[in-house]
Amino acid sequence: MTPDRPGLSTPRLIGLDWGTTAMRCWLLGDNGRILDARRLAGGLLDMATGIDAADPAARARAYEATFLDVCGPWLRAVPGLPALACGMVGSAQGWREAGYLDVPARLDITGPDLTRVPLAGGTVHLVPGLRVPSDPCHDIAGDVLRGEETQVIGALESLDRPDAEHVLVLPGTHTKWIRIADRKVLSFTTAMTGELYALVTQHGLLSHTGMTPRRDDAAFARGLTAGFSARDIGLAATLFGARALVLDGLLEPAALADYLSGVVIADEARHLLPRHAGTQRITLCGNGDLCRRYAAALRMRGVGTEVVGEDAAAAGLWSVAVAAGLVGVDGNTCWPDSGKRTPARRDSWSA
Amino acid sequence: MTPDRPGLSTPRLIGLDWGTTAMRCWLLGDNGRILDARRLAGGLLDMATGIDAADPAARARAYEATFLDVCGPWLRAVPGLPALACGMVGSAQGWREAGYLDVPARLDITGPDLTRVPLAGGTVHLVPGLRVPSDPCHDIAGDVLRGEETQVIGALESLDRPDAEHVLVLPGTHTKWIRIADRKVLSFTTAMTGELYALVTQHGLLSHTGMTPRRDDAAFARGLTAGFSARDIGLAATLFGARALVLDGLLEPAALADYLSGVVIADEARHLLPRHAGTQRITLCGNGDLCRRYAAALRMRGVGTEVVGEDAAAAGLWSVAVAAGLVGVDGNTCWPDSGKRTPARRDSWSA
Repeated sequence: MTPDRPGLSTPRLIGLDWGTTAMRCWLLGDNGRILDARRLAGGLLDMATGIDAADPAARARAYEATFLDVCGPWLRAVPGLPALACGMVGSAQGWREAGYLDVPARLDITGPDLTRVPLAGGTVHLVPGLRVPSDPCHDIAGDVLRGEETQVIGALESLDRPDAEHVLVLPGTHTKWIRIADRKVLSFTTAMTGELYALVTQHGLLSHTGMTPRRDDAAFARGLTAGFSARDIGLAATLFGARALVLDGLLEPAALADYLSGVVIADEARHLLPRHAGTQRITLCGNGDLCRRYAAALRMRGVGTEVVGEDAAAAGLWSVAVAAGLVGVDGNTCWPDSGKRTPARRDSWSA
Repeated sequence: MTPDRPGLSTPRLIGLDWGTTAMRCWLLGDNGRILDARRLAGGLLDMATGIDAADPAARARAYEATFLDVCGPWLRAVPGLPALACGMVGSAQGWREAGYLDVPARLDITGPDLTRVPLAGGTVHLVPGLRVPSDPCHDIAGDVLRGEETQVIGALESLDRPDAEHVLVLPGTHTKWIRIADRKVLSFTTAMTGELYALVTQHGLLSHTGMTPRRDDAAFARGLTAGFSARDIGLAATLFGARALVLDGLLEPAALADYLSGVVIADEARHLLPRHAGTQRITLCGNGDLCRRYAAALRMRGVGTEVVGEDAAAAGLWSVAVAAGLVGVDGNTCWPDSGKRTPARRDSWSA
């Protein structure tokens, strides 16, 4: 048992993982120890409400106000505390465009890679995302991620052999399959599996059962089996099959959501696992319930898993802050000079 | 040129295709000639608004009111005109449960197969749907359709060899692939491709482009190519790829919807076409624009198509009405005795 010495609880950094649907923030002390944490439902989708997308200044004011609202108490207690944020907050629709690092990309993100947003009381630093550029010659789509690069940096620290080759899967609205070797991201693929699940169960015709969903692990397992079926009729047809099962009295309407969850996760794994042939073990990082679901799916395909919790983002933010000199290695806060930054790529997603 | 003789314009039947998202109805004269037509946006989803799902009487009153509102003028002009309706109106959440015929099913639907809904001014007859029963031993989902059986009956009439073997594809919210031989439905599969497209483009994160969609046939063709790609990363990942293409400036945000349309249709065809191996020609039946899209997808796979228009439902309703004796073969309306009807299957979908 380590006694709680006063020095250990000195705040050194505010870390934020500010995504499309949620914002999580941590007050971090020496060695990245979590002193306090807050979670704000909503995220970027809520920020956009009532803001003119074509007015970056209005958007910046809205982000600053939300940031100060959530983190203000920590800043008032420790004036000048540095802040580091990852996630969609650094996208073109976010606070400020923080650019991308092209894959393959080393994960030693440092000061020059960060985008600085000066505020009255200090500076918020934004972590760049990662990008697989599209191939215009063969019209093959690339891929993008924001926030997961920081989770991966944090997750690697908790692995036995961080320099070895790893496949990490970060389940969520947009699940990422990330291949890493020697602390370098070699490639990654995004599947919008969580989004499809949410759309179908919240807005789709299958949602009109009049029943409140009830957790049903057996229905989830049946959905996995259907999604992995050798009789591969595709996702759009396998999803509709749930309707026939309910009509035939073979699936409770209240268990429909878990069945559909199994179908979409299995369909994702059936397509993306073969791209990592030979992989015996996958590291899952994210929400506990979602990781359990992916672990069950991968187990059906003979692949073992280990799970790193969602706070990997906090560990990753601390690592980046140390590498960028926002906090000293000894844990002392310091303010680095503004280094030369790679120009942010234009994000043409928003108008 | 056939002169428009007065006798030819005598109304014989009201035909309705009353589905989940729209109601189409026709006033039919001798030989099923279309005398008038109406279309009501909405359909079953709108009917359910404000109605207690657990109160069948309230639901029936709402259906009757809508029916009389749309078809009342026709009924007042020709009192006692029989009405025949197909589609989700015959589901458990509809006007009245009209049961299913199990596949393989002959398409000679007759009087005893219909469900009668008596009204003050006459009777509305409901066409049963078709069902592939689920396999409870192997937990394989079956399938259901309502309305398409009537479209198929009508479509067969316009084909050169209606008794031959055919594959019909009826594109829509829930696209049906139907295998027919000797006027018998041998099997069918539903893909909720249109629903996924609508969910992703109307409610999904990809819909947040701030751009009004603009028709772009080239983007649609690129989506088809991506959906058919040998690099099969699955639907959830291929859909997300559109985001990277937009970010990389390789796809106009306004063309995103057509690109996604190509992706989902190709993903459906890549899975369901192999289940009809050897098929050189497919009959498409439905909305003209959707049929063109499916024809383009199938052409990429070396399969020819012919298109039957949406009014196949009107032709099918007329055929069923003749077979059921609702109208005489000579075109005279007659009211058959209530025949012995196969008991309607319980539809456990709604609570």
